[in-house]
This record gives sequence, C-alpha cells and structure tokens, in this order.
Amino acid sequence: MKTLEQLQEQLQEQYKTYKEMGLSLTMQRGQPGDDNFDLSNGMLNSVTIDDLVSESGIALRNYPGGVKGLPEARQLFGNMLGVSADEMIVGNNSSLKLLSETLLWAMMRGLKNSPAPWKDGKVKIIVTVPGYDRHFHFLDQIGCEMVTVQMNSDGPDMDAVEELALDPEVKGMLFVPIYSNPTGDTVSDEVVRRLAKMETAVPDFTIFADNAYSVHHLGNEKDEPINMLRACQEAGNPDRVYLYGSTSKMTYASAGLGFMAASADNIEYIAHFMGAQFIGPNKVEQYRHVRFLNNYPGGIAGLMAAHAALLKPKFDAVNTVLSRELGDSGLATWTTPKGGYFISLDTAKPVASRVVELAGELGVGLTPAGATYPHKHDPNNCNIRLSPSRPPVADVEQAMEVVAFCVKLASVE
Amino acid sequence: MKTLEQLQEQLQEQYKTYKEMGLSLTMQRGQPGDDNFDLSNGMLNSVTIDDLVSESGIALRNYPGGVKGLPEARQLFGNMLGVSADEMIVGNNSSLKLLSETLLWAMMRGLKNSPAPWKDGKVKIIVTVPGYDRHFHFLDQIGCEMVTVQMNSDGPDMDAVEELALDPEVKGMLFVPIYSNPTGDTVSDEVVRRLAKMETAVPDFTIFADNAYSVHHLGNEKDEPINMLRACQEAGNPDRVYLYGSTSKMTYASAGLGFMAASADNIEYIAHFMGAQFIGPNKVEQYRHVRFLNNYPGGIAGLMAAHAALLKPKFDAVNTVLSRELGDSGLATWTTPKGGYFISLDTAKPVASRVVELAGELGVGLTPAGATYPHKHDPNNCNIRLSPSRPPVADVEQAMEVVAFCVKLASVE
Repeated sequence: MKTLEQLQEQLQEQYKTYKEMGLSLTMQRGQPGDDNFDLSNGMLNSVTIDDLVSESGIALRNYPGGVKGLPEARQLFGNMLGVSADEMIVGNNSSLKLLSETLLWAMMRGLKNSPAPWKDGKVKIIVTVPGYDRHFHFLDQIGCEMVTVQMNSDGPDMDAVEELALDPEVKGMLFVPIYSNPTGDTVSDEVVRRLAKMETAVPDFTIFADNAYSVHHLGNEKDEPINMLRACQEAGNPDRVYLYGSTSKMTYASAGLGFMAASADNIEYIAHFMGAQFIGPNKVEQYRHVRFLNNYPGGIAGLMAAHAALLKPKFDAVNTVLSRELGDSGLATWTTPKGGYFISLDTAKPVASRVVELAGELGVGLTPAGATYPHKHDPNNCNIRLSPSRPPVADVEQAMEVVAFCVKLASVE
Repeated sequence: MKTLEQLQEQLQEQYKTYKEMGLSLTMQRGQPGDDNFDLSNGMLNSVTIDDLVSESGIALRNYPGGVKGLPEARQLFGNMLGVSADEMIVGNNSSLKLLSETLLWAMMRGLKNSPAPWKDGKVKIIVTVPGYDRHFHFLDQIGCEMVTVQMNSDGPDMDAVEELALDPEVKGMLFVPIYSNPTGDTVSDEVVRRLAKMETAVPDFTIFADNAYSVHHLGNEKDEPINMLRACQEAGNPDRVYLYGSTSKMTYASAGLGFMAASADNIEYIAHFMGAQFIGPNKVEQYRHVRFLNNYPGGIAGLMAAHAALLKPKFDAVNTVLSRELGDSGLATWTTPKGGYFISLDTAKPVASRVVELAGELGVGLTPAGATYPHKHDPNNCNIRLSPSRPPVADVEQAMEVVAFCVKLASVE
C-alpha cells in the first residue's frame, strides 16, 4: 500500500503531465453543441415572403396580435406543457426574462391575489440548493432574501418547504422542478401534490417553476411528473403557480422563444402589466418556430429525440470516467440524470473550490464553485456543476479525467 | 347667408349620406402600410446557413455575445444616432420595452447617480402634452405622477420645465423630442441646450427621450437638432439623458429591434441590471437587421427615403383636405410635420370627443379623444391625433373629409 507521500508524489507527477498537455476545455455553462444547433437550421427560412399572414389570420409584420403572443405559438407550447392556449404567454427569447418581469411586477404592483405590492414589505423566496446561479442573482438584485431548502432526488425537501411557507414574509418559491439545474433531479407526483395543497401564510404565495428542461429527456426513460398547474387547480389554489420554459435548448440558444403558463386569470393579470411595456413580442420569430417545429418529423418530441442522441453519449462519458476514476474512492458522489443539461458532483471533503481552481490551472474550465448556492456561498464547499453538453465526447472524457484527478489531488492536499 | 338652422339641416343631410356609404376606415394607430413593410422583405432571408458567425466573430446561435447586443448592431444604430457603440444597447423588438425596463430598475434600484431607489419616495415625471398614450399608461402603472408641460413648435415649454426641475420630487422627463407624437414638433437646438444645462433639484434627474422618429423624415426638409447626449456631456451632465429608438417603423413593426443610447457609464450601469434578466437579445434577429440595412441601397437613409416616398402623399392628403374643408372656418388648427407618423388636430371648441364619436358612427376610427393626455383627460377636449400612415391615399382623403365634416357638425351642435 502506498504511503500518503508516495500518493502525493504520484499525483504531482500526473499534475505536471496534464499541465504540459496544454489543454483548453470548458464545461462551464449549459450550452448546446453546434451539432444540436444544426438540427434547427431549417428555422432560418421557415417563414418566407409567402407566409406573411399566420394561419389564424394575423399579419406578422404589423403591430396587432396581442401581448400574449401569436395564437399558433401559444397553442404549440401549451400542448407541450399540457395546458390550454389561454393559459399561455409566449414572448421573445429567454424564459428568465419572463420570470424576471413577473417578479418585477410582483414587487411593483403585487400579483393577482396580493394584498399589497411586494416592495412594501420584506420578501423572502424559497430556493432549492444546489440550484441555478442566474435565479439567485436576479432575486438578489431585486432585494429578495433567499431561504434555501435541499433539492432531493424527489424534489425540494417538502418538510422544510411546508414549514417555511407558514412564514408571512415568505412570498414564494423559485426552482427547477424537472431535471433540476444542476442535480438533474425531478419532483415526484407526491411532491407536486404537497406543493399544490400546502398551507401558506400569505394568500399570494407563488411558485415560480422554471420548467427549462421539461421535454429535454436523454433517453427513453423519462421523468414526467404530473402537471403542477393542474395539481394546483385541483387543490383549490389555481393561481399558485407560474411555469416558465423556452426553446433555448430546443432551437437556438440565442434566438429561441420564452414562454410561461399559469391560470387564465393569472395570465390576464400579468399580461395587463406586460402590455404596458410593449405592444407584443416578435411575431415573425414566433411563426418561424411554429412552422419549423410543426413541420419537424415527429414534431417537438422528434426534435428532442434527435438532441438526445447527440447529448446522451456526453452524459454517459461523464459517468463512465467518474465511475472508473472515483467509483470506489469515497471521494465524491455525482448524479446520473435522465434529462436536462447538468450533472452535480459533490466532493466528500470541502474541496470544491480547490478542485475548480486546479482544473482551471490544467486548462479545464468549470462553473465556479459556490455558484450553485445563493451569494456564491456553498456552506460545505462540496458542490460542482458539470456541463457536458457542448464539447465533443472525446473532450468530455478528457475533461472528466482531469476533473477526477483534481478531486483526488485536492482531497489528498 | 345661411341661418344656423339651415346649416344644421344641411349637415344632417350630409351625415345621412356618409352613414349610407357604410365606410370602414381607420386612422387610429401609427402603423406603417403593407407597402412600407414590403421594402424590408429582404430581411426575411438576410441571414442564411452561411452566416452563422457574425463578422466580429460571434456565434449567432449560441448564448455568448453580451446583454448589450451584437457589436455590429450597436455600431450600426450608434452611427444612426450619432453616438459610439459603447454608448449603445440593442435589444429585442420595441424601444418601449427598453424604456420601461430602465424605469423599472430606476424604481427598484435607482439610476447611476441616484441617492436611493425611486420607489422609496414620491416620483413625479414631466411629460409633454399632447403626447404619447403608451408613455402615460406605463408611467401610471408604475405609480409615477405625471406633470404636464406644453409641447410647442420648438419643443417642450422650457420655462415650465426649468421650474418643475427644481422640485425634488421631479425625477425626470419623458417625451418625444423629434417629430413628436402627436404634434410632429421637434426640439430646437436652443431647447436641447437648455435641457442639457438646466439646474435640477435631484442629482439623478433623467431625461428619457423617445427618439422614435429621428430618421423618419417625410421629405428633403429635415428636422435634425443637435445630439442631446453630446449636449448633456458638453454641459457637464453626461448621465442626464437616455435616448430610445427602434426599427419598428424602419423594417417590421412587430419584428424590429429596440435600442437605446446613453453615456458609456450609464450603459454599464443599466446593462448590469438588464443582464440579471437574460443572457442577451436575439442575435440572429439583430444580424438579420445589420445585414439587411447595410446592404440596402443607400443604407438606412436610402430605406427611409423609400418610406417617405410612400408616406408623404398621405400626410399631404390630410393637409389638403383639412385646408380645403376647414381652412378659413376658424373651427380647427392642425400641424404639418416634416416627419414622424402623426398630425395633431385641435378643435377651436371643446368638441374633440364628439368629433371622434361622430367619425366612429360614420365608419372612421380615430384615436380616442383624450388619449394624448395623462389619464386620458384632455382638459380642453380639443386634441385629436391623426394617423394617416397606413391607409391608402384615397382612404386617407375619404377619412379626412369625414373628419372635417365631423368637426363642422360637432362645432355647430
């Protein structure tokens, strides 16, 4: 058996070897690969001079059409989310934009059942950890205090959520319910039902569910929990939830469509305020999506299966390398999601920041340690978000070998 | 000479004649005509599968590129506004969206030189009247009190503005400086200089200048006042002004780009908050605009001249019919703008609402009376906004004959 000194010496040798390789790899952000984007190139010319009026009779180039988006787009993405068109708003690119606008209006004016604008008092929002850094950053910018609950394999720790919801300063909850960022975990039906029916201190307690990955399965085994909007309606709390999604990881990351679903009453309520900000979203871009996605073989499901075929080998590569290098080491655990864009790695020792630092020195860019917690502070310094979606499989393998090595080196240090 | 009874009888006969014509015309909103839109149809395929990376090397389909917009787009519209690229943000469609976002962040967090978020105190905003209903509606929705000053032929009544700016509750001013909505009036150089240098009670007094029509000339005689951003810089108040514009009336009304200009410091400041809301605007749509407008014969100026050729006969028709029907009646006055999208009609008697009502009965839709004032209340009930841009010339003539008739009838009633 090796002594600790021998092991350290061996690892230092290995470090030098990796360093000399001069790698330049990144697994920092959840970006699709160019091969994923190629699947949607047909969208570039899916609307031509012959398609200037939509099927429902809306002139695409002129203003009228409504702040809620093109009827055809509301129908298409409503079908995808399992809701009706009048429960939908389709916007310009980015679901985060629609989410942030809803929250800005909640602050300025309150939501449909609010006794007062949220800005008039202290606002606490429940977030799941590890979670999505852009959620945390936005909430911080508008002055919301974040209270954390653990994201478990079946969703948020519901005992903690139910207790927090009894605090009158807790106005809502923001999280990714399906293929969570970064764990890939999905809410169980039971968790959805508890969220829908739980007692809350305030009448306008609102669940902001970022459904970024609801159709982003990696294989045939799919996480498909019951519909949160329907569950809330059945529990007698129809206005409790807003769902958000986008085509950023279906068509083009930069040129997709954001959309949101809520009760028809909530949609009317928030559309009134959104309508004070513009006449409506880009209808030509919406119709491009409608025509492209409706004409894609197998529709949205067909496109997502084509994406999965490109992405699954990358996720498999992460698991294969980590299992081989760290499988029985006790130095780390990691998730094996059935969908989404991320894998969450937890080190056994509090060395996540050191692992990211070492990997950076060796030319492998990782999401900064701490990013998965509010204010970039991971109390256990153990969580690392892995984003294998963009690099080619060989690069993912190479990068993961370096990451596994850095976990060993940092743990020994 | 006719008696009043004879005149009324004659007008009643005429009313019946118009009624029997069963007209269905609208001059309600400032919409381009389909012939205007046709000029930009080349934009639909200006980005193809061969253009997936911009000239500056940015991958159009992926996320990175920045919240401020594509460098090429910032350069193009910066040139148009006479500012540099680092003084620009280019967004998705609608300048009103960018304007409203700036104001929402001013409320939530304050602007660059704000001692505190605007929401923490009372906020009064100076607006010009007659003015733009969507400005008034948005300010009302975020709880800003509007204080009105008259829009004169050389811009806002500056004596009134300078006095109001000494009120510490007055945080800024929102208006259309060039080819104002609805009067078509433009600020003089002297007014720009006074705005730039005037004393203000608060250090963060901000001019929100909706430059919606800065290149929307109708003929060779153009209103081209000095640059307001440069004037503010020269006066030692570089952060005083935000300028907004869009291509909604250059390319497609529904599928244009909104943009804004301000000091580079202001741009950095506001981009930080906008960047909390999304990763960035739709880069493919931005590049469509860049390629289309740069390749258009004569560039943006060439395109706007082509628009003017289609629009000017419509504006001329309004003036011709009004001059013929009401020229020496003393019943109304109206503006004859050199650009923009509107003509402002003032009745001598307080009958604007009755004119709009009568015109509606005869099948001519006009912007509701009062819309050009905050809370839809025109204290003199005299102002009517005319929007001749969309209907064909013959329809504009027909509609204006009806409007002139309704002015006579309402005045006699």
